[in-house]
Amino acid sequence: MSTVGQPIECKAAIAWEAKKPLDVRTVVVAPPQAGEVRIKIVATALCHTDAYTLSGCDPEGLFPCILGHEAAGVVESVGPDVTSVAPGDHVIPCYQAFCGACKFCGSGKTNLCGSVRAWTGKGIMKANEQSRFTCDGKPIYHFMGTSTFAEYTVLHAVSVAKINPQAPLDKVGLLGCGVATGLGAVWNTAKVEAGATVAVFGLGAVGLAVIEGSVIAKAGRIIAVDTNPEKFELAKKWGATDVINPKDSDKPIQDVIVELTDGGVDYSFECVGNVHVMRSALECCHKGWGESVIIGVAASGQEISTRPFQLVTGRVWKGTAFGGFKSRVDVPILVEKYMAGEIKLDEYITHNFKLEDINQAFELLHNGQCLRAVLNLGSA
Amino acid sequence: MSTVGQPIECKAAIAWEAKKPLDVRTVVVAPPQAGEVRIKIVATALCHTDAYTLSGCDPEGLFPCILGHEAAGVVESVGPDVTSVAPGDHVIPCYQAFCGACKFCGSGKTNLCGSVRAWTGKGIMKANEQSRFTCDGKPIYHFMGTSTFAEYTVLHAVSVAKINPQAPLDKVGLLGCGVATGLGAVWNTAKVEAGATVAVFGLGAVGLAVIEGSVIAKAGRIIAVDTNPEKFELAKKWGATDVINPKDSDKPIQDVIVELTDGGVDYSFECVGNVHVMRSALECCHKGWGESVIIGVAASGQEISTRPFQLVTGRVWKGTAFGGFKSRVDVPILVEKYMAGEIKLDEYITHNFKLEDINQAFELLHNGQCLRAVLNLGSA
Repeated sequence: MSTVGQPIECKAAIAWEAKKPLDVRTVVVAPPQAGEVRIKIVATALCHTDAYTLSGCDPEGLFPCILGHEAAGVVESVGPDVTSVAPGDHVIPCYQAFCGACKFCGSGKTNLCGSVRAWTGKGIMKANEQSRFTCDGKPIYHFMGTSTFAEYTVLHAVSVAKINPQAPLDKVGLLGCGVATGLGAVWNTAKVEAGATVAVFGLGAVGLAVIEGSVIAKAGRIIAVDTNPEKFELAKKWGATDVINPKDSDKPIQDVIVELTDGGVDYSFECVGNVHVMRSALECCHKGWGESVIIGVAASGQEISTRPFQLVTGRVWKGTAFGGFKSRVDVPILVEKYMAGEIKLDEYITHNFKLEDINQAFELLHNGQCLRAVLNLGSA
Repeated sequence: MSTVGQPIECKAAIAWEAKKPLDVRTVVVAPPQAGEVRIKIVATALCHTDAYTLSGCDPEGLFPCILGHEAAGVVESVGPDVTSVAPGDHVIPCYQAFCGACKFCGSGKTNLCGSVRAWTGKGIMKANEQSRFTCDGKPIYHFMGTSTFAEYTVLHAVSVAKINPQAPLDKVGLLGCGVATGLGAVWNTAKVEAGATVAVFGLGAVGLAVIEGSVIAKAGRIIAVDTNPEKFELAKKWGATDVINPKDSDKPIQDVIVELTDGGVDYSFECVGNVHVMRSALECCHKGWGESVIIGVAASGQEISTRPFQLVTGRVWKGTAFGGFKSRVDVPILVEKYMAGEIKLDEYITHNFKLEDINQAFELLHNGQCLRAVLNLGSA
């Protein structure tokens, strides 16, 4: 029996409130309305942003909600006026939409499409300003416009990237956030050129993707920084030429790097989300031209600071969201790069779980040995 | 009798110590050594950086010294190995050198030549690590490698820009600092494009030069901000389309500008040297692409700060020194632009004094009616 136009009962991991374990329950997923797409999720990874919201530290976090934003699946059905995808299409949900028509998309200067941000930020869908999820009749908020910790979810069509149907969905979902963000920070935001010297702070999946992007950009020297030396082996495997533990010196890490590089690096990337590390990342840049890119998400209320002299003498401080990639345009291209063997994905996946084991997966997330834990929800 | 190779006795304004009036005295200016040029100063303007060092707030300030860095003159003699200029050449002293050969000049990415910075920062000349000035036999430090509050001064040849001998030296000296800095911040650092919306904080000579540079770049809207409404008439005359006094609203000025511009400006420029204004200038920029350029020099020890979210959502924070102009290369071109009527200079000069009246000129500097006070020291 077709599910088109019908509510679907399925399993989802509900975050009823902050700091509590997720609750895998049966939810009802309403059919997609105008401009919406209902997707069967095949695999979803866990990202630190999910953990951050669950921790209660995100002032914009809404509960109860269904977390999850790094996934892949198959279109089950589409609402009226949706022409960009059709049932059966293989897709990657994108927390950063791309409409191609708004002020942001039209600028050609940014990937921060504004078409649905006002609604995704409130955990609801644009068409009727309500959620498509209920549990025991109670509405459950969407999260980041994606809510992929569910067997079925509903997205705005502008947030759905159609990809090569040959691509393994349990791998390419990683292009929905962390790996794409790291690659794009190097390629789109910093535009690292051949021969450049790069410093990467934080060696999780995003930091490793920065290393990978830098290797592909033919950076001459890639300095990997982390306070956990267990991460250095992977960093070297990914292509880091130097590994540094800030705890190994009494000097500030920026001073160590400036000495090591005869003046500082050309580009630095902060992949931790710590405002003090952000300062170090800026200040290890070379006078005259060094650029530092903030990727990590700092805790609410925290501020970055430095002496303005750092900028007046030529350093540039910038940031990136989703690596500057225009989601619906660029994610399919990244999938092709993976299929062609040009970028890694399999190597980032260190653990696989079932949806029922999601709380165990979250515990692993803070373990230095875990890069990405993937929940396998079903077949395409 | 030729002065070549001989010490020259002349007048100079000596800053014996911080916070004291300058003392116009007879000094002895030694002949130029290898790689040096002795210049007869025809006219010099006062700049806030002179006042800042005289205030004692600059931790790198050295006393006794001869201040001054915005001037023009004629080469009196050159030391061995100097081929870039010859006696009789009309020149502008440049506090930012350009050697064309160091790591910085060679990068193509910055104007911050490093060839003589280590010595100019210590108030001495590279050749023998001593000063060329003495007063009553006591050495007097150089300042910014220029020391133009003197009838004769000695510079490193890499800091001397040869200009069109037809140019009026009492006008074009302004291209040695403030006006060039404002124009260059717009053209080189921000690269403002036609139609862009710009905000300028601080309406002294540098802020007005930013307005002028923006008009020449065909900016669509130029918002001038100052807490002194007496400056608004000039700002409008220079080409500002909007003038705003932050004191006229209870809201933060960045919120006022974001509302006024439907999201923020494309480019902002801080020409005050106040870290709180620097934050406002960043935060009034448009999400996704707005860039803020710090021009003003903040008091020692002060820091800028903001939420990293400002950068992660696409704003860029940068700074500029001498507007990114490569001094010896670009200053002569700016002089030609002035000669061709393409940029203003005369309109920035509100007062003229003799060297003896320099303390009176400094008092005027903090008066809102004074843009540039020029000291006329002699003829070419």
